[in-house]
Amino acid sequence: MTYNQLVEQIGLKRSFLCVGLDSDRSLLPAHLQLHPQALFLFNKEVIDSTAAYAVAYKLNTAFYEAEGTNGWAQLSQTVSYIRERHPNILVIADAKRGDISNTAKHYARAFFEEMNVDALTLSPYMGTDSLTPFLEYKEKWTIILALTSNSGASDFELQLLANGQPLYEAVIQKSCTLGAKEQLMFVVGATHPQQLVRVRALLPEHFLLVPGVGAQGGSLEEVVQNGMNDSCGLLVNMSRGIIFADNSRHFADAAGLRAKEMTQKMSALLPQSLVG
Amino acid sequence: MTYNQLVEQIGLKRSFLCVGLDSDRSLLPAHLQLHPQALFLFNKEVIDSTAAYAVAYKLNTAFYEAEGTNGWAQLSQTVSYIRERHPNILVIADAKRGDISNTAKHYARAFFEEMNVDALTLSPYMGTDSLTPFLEYKEKWTIILALTSNSGASDFELQLLANGQPLYEAVIQKSCTLGAKEQLMFVVGATHPQQLVRVRALLPEHFLLVPGVGAQGGSLEEVVQNGMNDSCGLLVNMSRGIIFADNSRHFADAAGLRAKEMTQKMSALLPQSLVG
Repeated sequence: MTYNQLVEQIGLKRSFLCVGLDSDRSLLPAHLQLHPQALFLFNKEVIDSTAAYAVAYKLNTAFYEAEGTNGWAQLSQTVSYIRERHPNILVIADAKRGDISNTAKHYARAFFEEMNVDALTLSPYMGTDSLTPFLEYKEKWTIILALTSNSGASDFELQLLANGQPLYEAVIQKSCTLGAKEQLMFVVGATHPQQLVRVRALLPEHFLLVPGVGAQGGSLEEVVQNGMNDSCGLLVNMSRGIIFADNSRHFADAAGLRAKEMTQKMSALLPQSLVG
Repeated sequence: MTYNQLVEQIGLKRSFLCVGLDSDRSLLPAHLQLHPQALFLFNKEVIDSTAAYAVAYKLNTAFYEAEGTNGWAQLSQTVSYIRERHPNILVIADAKRGDISNTAKHYARAFFEEMNVDALTLSPYMGTDSLTPFLEYKEKWTIILALTSNSGASDFELQLLANGQPLYEAVIQKSCTLGAKEQLMFVVGATHPQQLVRVRALLPEHFLLVPGVGAQGGSLEEVVQNGMNDSCGLLVNMSRGIIFADNSRHFADAAGLRAKEMTQKMSALLPQSLVG
């Protein structure tokens, strides 16, 4: 999905909602718990009930790897399902990979070819040579961790370098030249509203993937005020608040309703030029 | 495998060799290339011919994920094979994971329970709360990236913080208190011999996992001189130089021979107290 197609979908759906399919088996409805395909069956229903509202789905690989080979199969199956049924929705693998260059090439192949997602999250710790192999896939999105929503962000990401710049800013500055806004996004947590202003100044045009609204305490209004640009430029992720809204047999309806409510809030916050 | 058992194995085998099973399908011998189980079949033979010399095997997840669900299955199968046939060899999943705490718990479950490896590599970028869930597994090893062997290490890992300390040192200092030397190791590339001296001063007792000897230009002798302690304290990884020593049908014999040669060099470099 291109930058322009993504902006178009945001305008059409009046939404910049990314639904996080963090399908933790222990939180699934009781009637699915013991099914060997529980993750996929759960995802399928959640996807169908939220697809009218979501412009992106984000699958965190941890919840699938925790189920072993069968979990990896359900991750792949979910990606294929979204791509077939809802081809206008961006599919993000939230895998936070990062390794030296030949190895990075294999991760790129794993996610961009074998699994065929649109976008992949990466950890920048090992430096820019661990990122460049992904940017060779011009039609795919590389999403780099900058400032994450967890409290541990203060340990290293927010540490000041000798030049006075916090590490996450150095990450943005060194990486933003690696690819155009059409193939590069950054993760910035909603729990850092002040830093979001700074990131938007550094990256006026790029999309930001924003976790941390809801359960982690970030405010949607503040994220919009500090981070939105003329093309929206934001994908706000919500996971548990949507997918685990209800854990009865009606979980999918509840997820759809919650996604719809988020979209209604988002609709009112989008630039008129996009939704006009 | 405990700290003491690892030191004992090093003494018995007169080796601190970690064999990296970076089983890139495109580099496998021609007769295996098209076999659906190629990675596992290749690994099995390499393992049997090198097990007398290796104290650890390291499986980089990228090469398996690049093959999709079938690749993940072969990764698991390889781990099970080593644990059954060679229970005194440490099995490391080189996955470089890192995520917020509830997600990190699922990665810990994926690797320490589902796949049942002894050790897992982690990226520290997101901070200490992304590392602690792994350290709850007291009988497992958590291996944190500090200073990696690639040239991109200069982008962030070697950057000086405002207090004059390079980032990788801050990573070591903040993380080394999270667990004892019995469950925590750090990755330090052989391509940084001077920094290895500094790391050993910061961590007199911990094991270091050292990539970068051989193809990447690091010297075994320099690593030993700068990084060895009384318990050895080093696992030196070699991948391609061993597993792809020969790509004919005799690949496993060649791998065994190369591992034996490395071990002979290592034997001469170990403290007398260990091999006595």
